[in-house]
Amino acid sequence: MKKLTILGVTGSIGTQTLDVIRSDIKNFIIIGISANTNYEKIIPIIEEFKPKYVAMMDEEASLKLKKHCALKKYPTEILHGLDGLNYISTLPEVDLVVTSVVGMIGLVPTIKAINSGKDIALANKETLVAAGELVMEAAKKNNVNILPVDSEHGAIFQCLQGNKLENVNKIIITASGGPFRGKSRQELIGIRPEDAIKHPKWNMGKKISVDSSTLMNKGLEVIEAHWLFGVDYENIQVVVHPQSVIHSMVEYIDGSIIAQMSSTDMRLPIQYAINYPKRNIAVIDKLDFYNMSSLTFEKPDSDTFKCLKLALKAGKMGGNMPAIMNAANEVAVALFLDYKIKYLQIEDIIEKCMDKFDHNIKPNLEEILDVDLKVREYVKNNYDKE
Amino acid sequence: MKKLTILGVTGSIGTQTLDVIRSDIKNFIIIGISANTNYEKIIPIIEEFKPKYVAMMDEEASLKLKKHCALKKYPTEILHGLDGLNYISTLPEVDLVVTSVVGMIGLVPTIKAINSGKDIALANKETLVAAGELVMEAAKKNNVNILPVDSEHGAIFQCLQGNKLENVNKIIITASGGPFRGKSRQELIGIRPEDAIKHPKWNMGKKISVDSSTLMNKGLEVIEAHWLFGVDYENIQVVVHPQSVIHSMVEYIDGSIIAQMSSTDMRLPIQYAINYPKRNIAVIDKLDFYNMSSLTFEKPDSDTFKCLKLALKAGKMGGNMPAIMNAANEVAVALFLDYKIKYLQIEDIIEKCMDKFDHNIKPNLEEILDVDLKVREYVKNNYDKE
Repeated sequence: MKKLTILGVTGSIGTQTLDVIRSDIKNFIIIGISANTNYEKIIPIIEEFKPKYVAMMDEEASLKLKKHCALKKYPTEILHGLDGLNYISTLPEVDLVVTSVVGMIGLVPTIKAINSGKDIALANKETLVAAGELVMEAAKKNNVNILPVDSEHGAIFQCLQGNKLENVNKIIITASGGPFRGKSRQELIGIRPEDAIKHPKWNMGKKISVDSSTLMNKGLEVIEAHWLFGVDYENIQVVVHPQSVIHSMVEYIDGSIIAQMSSTDMRLPIQYAINYPKRNIAVIDKLDFYNMSSLTFEKPDSDTFKCLKLALKAGKMGGNMPAIMNAANEVAVALFLDYKIKYLQIEDIIEKCMDKFDHNIKPNLEEILDVDLKVREYVKNNYDKE
Repeated sequence: MKKLTILGVTGSIGTQTLDVIRSDIKNFIIIGISANTNYEKIIPIIEEFKPKYVAMMDEEASLKLKKHCALKKYPTEILHGLDGLNYISTLPEVDLVVTSVVGMIGLVPTIKAINSGKDIALANKETLVAAGELVMEAAKKNNVNILPVDSEHGAIFQCLQGNKLENVNKIIITASGGPFRGKSRQELIGIRPEDAIKHPKWNMGKKISVDSSTLMNKGLEVIEAHWLFGVDYENIQVVVHPQSVIHSMVEYIDGSIIAQMSSTDMRLPIQYAINYPKRNIAVIDKLDFYNMSSLTFEKPDSDTFKCLKLALKAGKMGGNMPAIMNAANEVAVALFLDYKIKYLQIEDIIEKCMDKFDHNIKPNLEEILDVDLKVREYVKNNYDKE
């Protein structure tokens, strides 16, 4: 019986995590859950899974929820704010924290959970992109498993089982190439938000869909892979594989490549992470090799999709640069989705921020959070024109 | 320092095994080697690797070799016959026996080696096809590793690392489809030996090339996989994959598929088997996903290529039936290569033998060797017309 806290339970990964747990309900107890503001979506989750604690980021939402629970006589304790998230991530009775919250807000609770000895099912990209070194140091110190919850790192993690990290020659991260694969710079100029959020293979949130279209998503994943698996940037290769059947691969020193494949369904990496080291009965559709389209592979076009290049540059620079790059991207994408900047301005803003902010090669957590805020402020002040 | 005996050192796998050892010579000592008749090819191997023992199957060849070694004052001890093979397979100082000898002659020395507690790098198909149950029982009893040395089982073995056999849902064995993939029954009628030995992807011996063209090779591999990995026939799927990049796969209960890929070079599975559980520096070319053709998959055409169907039938019947099927195929292929029968008679002969010989569901080793001889005799007597 595994006892879980799920941060960001109403989002895409949170919802799918509940779906996986629902299929094997006897083996899990949900102790704590969190959401941002969506208290209507939280109510049925409380009714179904009966968590002891709910933390709402938004105080007003927490008050409404508290009232509702009192009325219904639910015993659930309602908390709010970052303190609430930290509280449910560090409870002594919790074994595993699923960090499916989106954005920098996930970083502090994740580090607190690690320092409390909790295993982490990590779906929050910012944690490793912005603070990979600190997070992995803390994980090592506390002897905690960081179990990746996305298709690529989950695939790599599976491909590493039974092997030694020192025998890895190269990590090969596959990329669908996004909806604009094959387009020229000229064709990218007029891209609208509604074009960018249509992903050909995965059904995802809007922010990650835009990141996928700019290839920023792959850049973030390379940085994550660098920290998760301790592999140098020179030994991480991005390969475009539009069919998204192979989710990533590991090449060993002997030239053997181990690949992981499945249907495009996030519930597999979620299930693998929350059950690790066990495997459980499939919640996803099986692949059918008798009716499969050809699998193709190509080099990513990082001249057209400059975000990939920028992310790799930030990764290699290290220190606070990935945090600067990530914050710039996050705000730029939000502005783009809000029709406030053009598609290609996303990369311009990132590049400008990487030039503008000082490179600190050994930031502590406060410095990372601080530069993150400053970059966000800068981008908003300069590009968020009403 | 691993101490090896290599049975069948002058054949295709034997020669490539020496090549792998040559690349890492400080970690291996070759104690014993065997060959059939080719004593001229043995001499430079003695000079290079200085084995303590050489066993020639052919007595005359052993006498010539003995004379040569005496003349050159080599300290090598020369043995002959099956007793010689058995002797070098059971020496107390040997850790691992590489069974790269072709044909039923490999069976007895392999079993003797297992009973002497030697790990086996198994390249001899007949061992598991004809006597899988006995061999695996002996391996279990003696706590011995059977390390597969062919691209498919080596791939499966790699895909199983770090996983539990009980979590395997299905083994997916890939097949190139052979040189006649897509041909009709009508087109197979006139196939000549020189057509059948041209394999599109692998450079192999003549017998295995013909087996690959009839898909018998895949049938034999399914039977081997059944015994090696203890997986039911219903849970072994053959998938035609003409590019031979993916060498085989394992589907787990959660729907996740782990695949192994590499260039088509037998030295990788040999290297993996003789170094297991370690990996060593590549002796093969690496794959390049930026310049890779599409990977395709399809169902094997077992209506056209009936050998696959016959092999699976024999496997499922179990007992002595795979040995009967295998012996019939071996002699039929030899007769075909000798222009004595037509291509499609190979399957006719196998079918006839499977009908004619009594099904013994629990044969002992003597009964297997006996039925093997009887089938060979029967096929030769009835089809080897000068």
